[in-house]
Amino acid sequence: MTRVPALLAMESVRLVGDLFAADSRARLDSLVALHDTVLTPDAHAVPASTADTEILITGWGAPRLDGPMLDHWPNLRVVVHAAGSVKRQVTPDVWERGIRISSAAAANAVPVAEYTLATILLSARDALRSAHVFDRDQDMIAARPTGDVGAFGITVGVIGASRIGRRVLDLLRPFDIRCLVYDPSLSAVDAAGLGAELVTLPALLTRSRVVTIHAPALPETYRMIGRAELALMADGATLINTARGALVDTDALVDELRTDRLRAVLDVTDPEPLPPGHPLFSLTGATLTPHIAGSIGNELQRLGRHVVDEVERFVTTGELADEVTSPDLARIA
Amino acid sequence: MTRVPALLAMESVRLVGDLFAADSRARLDSLVALHDTVLTPDAHAVPASTADTEILITGWGAPRLDGPMLDHWPNLRVVVHAAGSVKRQVTPDVWERGIRISSAAAANAVPVAEYTLATILLSARDALRSAHVFDRDQDMIAARPTGDVGAFGITVGVIGASRIGRRVLDLLRPFDIRCLVYDPSLSAVDAAGLGAELVTLPALLTRSRVVTIHAPALPETYRMIGRAELALMADGATLINTARGALVDTDALVDELRTDRLRAVLDVTDPEPLPPGHPLFSLTGATLTPHIAGSIGNELQRLGRHVVDEVERFVTTGELADEVTSPDLARIA
Repeated sequence: MTRVPALLAMESVRLVGDLFAADSRARLDSLVALHDTVLTPDAHAVPASTADTEILITGWGAPRLDGPMLDHWPNLRVVVHAAGSVKRQVTPDVWERGIRISSAAAANAVPVAEYTLATILLSARDALRSAHVFDRDQDMIAARPTGDVGAFGITVGVIGASRIGRRVLDLLRPFDIRCLVYDPSLSAVDAAGLGAELVTLPALLTRSRVVTIHAPALPETYRMIGRAELALMADGATLINTARGALVDTDALVDELRTDRLRAVLDVTDPEPLPPGHPLFSLTGATLTPHIAGSIGNELQRLGRHVVDEVERFVTTGELADEVTSPDLARIA
Repeated sequence: MTRVPALLAMESVRLVGDLFAADSRARLDSLVALHDTVLTPDAHAVPASTADTEILITGWGAPRLDGPMLDHWPNLRVVVHAAGSVKRQVTPDVWERGIRISSAAAANAVPVAEYTLATILLSARDALRSAHVFDRDQDMIAARPTGDVGAFGITVGVIGASRIGRRVLDLLRPFDIRCLVYDPSLSAVDAAGLGAELVTLPALLTRSRVVTIHAPALPETYRMIGRAELALMADGATLINTARGALVDTDALVDELRTDRLRAVLDVTDPEPLPPGHPLFSLTGATLTPHIAGSIGNELQRLGRHVVDEVERFVTTGELADEVTSPDLARIA
């Protein structure tokens, strides 16, 4: 079989190594003829030698695929992106030229859903705030959680039946937890199929002990969790945000945390990065991680494996499992 | 059906209310005739009116069941304990008199396994240490985990195929995680049935990114994780202890944490409680919770439901699902 000409475009050669473990790289090399050059952001120009490229494999730091850029590859048929969101790379020119595009959002959803599951389980027993208090006061008895704690029969609310939201719902199945979901594009029947009850956003906020956000950052979701929404949450409830900081009104959240009424687990914030001295750093009910819920370390190899699976599918059948279409962009992250 | 005379013995009437939600209490009352008195530790004497008791339902704070205590209830047939370990209540006199005893260890295993799963998933991405560093230095980039992180394809070692250890293994099945188990009483075939590879303790410590302890505190397990064992663990690996503090040599662990070579998640410690100013409180790689991995808050209702299930089984069939026998005591927590 003649191998299809392909080109890697991403931040660095090192990232290529992080994405493709030896077995993935061997499979990739058996499927496509990779150009030796990796197109990194410091390249002054796209080498003319890559003009025959039919498959472009992109990662973080890949160039924006507008008309002039795409002109370098007249035979380009597909872009396979080794990260979750294609929004930074894609332009309407891609689809206008009949070039297809696929993302690794499914593989990137895995670590985010795992982080979310973990922080849901800990938040249910108020363990993260309890650990903060224990560190600060060094008094075991005083640091033990009080009030309505424990994970038996609690209700968890998932905002957004995105890939990640769906995976969170799936991971919650083995537990004694009732799931609610809010998503304006979801039917009650589909929600039930996901093991959740479809509710309005106010109902979700009112009834849930833990609320986790998996909605895309779009103009209509900007600060969807504002002061009024936070006020609906039950005393002692936890808000988890692994999506985008702009979905939450940070000042309103800080006010709720100052009175110790709510807790928050934030992997993303607005602003991001948080400036030193920001009140979130010193609030007992806030647990902050530095945007690490997505793929890190060895999890890049899961993205790489996903890319090779997709390239193999395309080369052998012409199909893509995770194609992103132009209308998708208006509703996904 | 004549209801069997039964007596509640535990710390307080409040604990009875916490254990038995309305539905559980109604079921219990339909199965047994409960004495109005709850035998609490402040009782001066066991009321003579309870002499007909056939079923004793015990919880934390129940009296030690030695000969003189058991003399109060000549018809006693079974003790159903609403907590994990019966070691504080039971004496050889119980079995010598033909009284059977059952524990709620199966129900108490649930929250411990959930806490463990959560901290395994976070430890795999070094998220707990990262959160500490982020709080301290308030620098998002510097706080991001480095080195061998991520949960894709990692190895987790479970010490002890106890109820909790087995449940942890079960909860780990949906993840891209390879499981090792060390338990001197387990066969390789049984380990494989649990989804794990049976290995020696040194092999487990050497190969695992996260090690979690679910062994009982026995004379032969005292400080089973000492200086030599910790030295076998990989750089950046995490030790999780939700079992008993005495299983770990705290000073040796502190030395490893001081050099930032290992991380630890400790819900139990030796000594416990930790005295204020103990070095564990200030080490970045240590995450401490105040002994809250077991049943707390609403999780007591899971213990209560388990007790009512067991009482129902005993009353209707004479069987017990979670009987503890005399030889069991030498090998369980």
